[in-house]
Amino acid sequence: MIYRTPKTYFLVSGSSEGYTRLNAFDGALLNAGVGNTNLVKVSSIIPPHSKEVQPIKLPEGTIVPTAYAHISSDIPGEIISAAVAVALPKDEEQPGLIMEYSAQGHKEEIELIARNMASEGMKMRQQEARKIKSISAEYTVRKIGAAFAAVILWR
Amino acid sequence: MIYRTPKTYFLVSGSSEGYTRLNAFDGALLNAGVGNTNLVKVSSIIPPHSKEVQPIKLPEGTIVPTAYAHISSDIPGEIISAAVAVALPKDEEQPGLIMEYSAQGHKEEIELIARNMASEGMKMRQQEARKIKSISAEYTVRKIGAAFAAVILWR
Amino acid sequence: MIYRTPKTYFLVSGSSEGYTRLNAFDGALLNAGVGNTNLVKVSSIIPPHSKEVQPIKLPEGTIVPTAYAHISSDIPGEIISAAVAVALPKDEEQPGLIMEYSAQGHKEEIELIARNMASEGMKMRQQEARKIKSISAEYTVRKIGAAFAAVILWR
Repeated sequence: MIYRTPKTYFLVSGSSEGYTRLNAFDGALLNAGVGNTNLVKVSSIIPPHSKEVQPIKLPEGTIVPTAYAHISSDIPGEIISAAVAVALPKDEEQPGLIMEYSAQGHKEEIELIARNMASEGMKMRQQEARKIKSISAEYTVRKIGAAFAAVILWR
Repeated sequence: MIYRTPKTYFLVSGSSEGYTRLNAFDGALLNAGVGNTNLVKVSSIIPPHSKEVQPIKLPEGTIVPTAYAHISSDIPGEIISAAVAVALPKDEEQPGLIMEYSAQGHKEEIELIARNMASEGMKMRQQEARKIKSISAEYTVRKIGAAFAAVILWR
Repeated sequence: MIYRTPKTYFLVSGSSEGYTRLNAFDGALLNAGVGNTNLVKVSSIIPPHSKEVQPIKLPEGTIVPTAYAHISSDIPGEIISAAVAVALPKDEEQPGLIMEYSAQGHKEEIELIARNMASEGMKMRQQEARKIKSISAEYTVRKIGAAFAAVILWR
């Protein structure tokens, strides 16, 4: 049911050129390995006791709760990046937190910002992070391009 | 469960004037026959073996995964349109793709752009489209108006 | 399943300062008591026969359909507010309607606008409202802040 709590998660990222911004977004999802699913954007928690798994091939057309960052651009030569970061608390009874960030710029700096955001979100919860995981994608636009990074929440 | 894969789909569109932009959006949904449901935006795949059906009256308040295009305007006299297009691959084991587009302009041109986007999305998947279906709505704003087009994914 | 119809609902609101806009949003959700869940945005109906309940502590990481208003700002001293309003029809076989509004300004005026929007939405359905409920949050930005108001749809 929609109220079900996800049990596993994995991180993916991708980028693409495209015929339009939405096609570039679609291409970035394909490049990330999740382009044939129905992503539903969520605000953005890892349930306690969830396990990170290797990216799996999701059933085609399945509805998948996902926390994601996304950016597109039609400025040739522009460098764009998208990143997500997961902060996991020392207290494993507590939930983890996902933060998303995307902007112009190289993926190292964008990913670092996402990590800092996740770290700050832990502080706001008075939790100490035992680990911060992150992923990002960078793209240099030819005509129209997109970058995408996501945490897929899975059953 | 949220991970369930939809089995059927149908296309709807509508437009409306409204007291605010959100009221106009609400009116466009009512005009399209889906105004009393809880639409959840998805990115935007027709699962393999899904069947297109005639628009059905959805249970009121039900949560419905939907790929949609939407535009609103408060410029009197402005013509706005929203369109969705579905590309279905020759290989019926493969998923279909939904593309959404909305902009100022007449529905014929907006719908054509959505169709081209869906066609390009098939190419990106190295699939040939056996059929492209589309729907659109056009609205000439009096004070505040909205146009809406959607593919409803249903069980 | 995602197509399940919610049976209860409750109203919450909150506000927060934050390290970034997204952290402020996260803080506002925590302040509202729903910060450790996965909110999924819906367009925005109270199913017939749904019951309003007191805010409950949702399972951490659970996926929760939610109608919400949200605003963030990085202008020190700016006053921002977010509000939701629920209009319930006299005919209890009919669904209720949720409207969301957020803007600069004090919560009384923002909440009134949301109430008027919900009232107009009832008129559009040729229904008379038996009751309009609303909630709002106001925040005066120090560096970066956010305000949030929501109707949580629950099983």
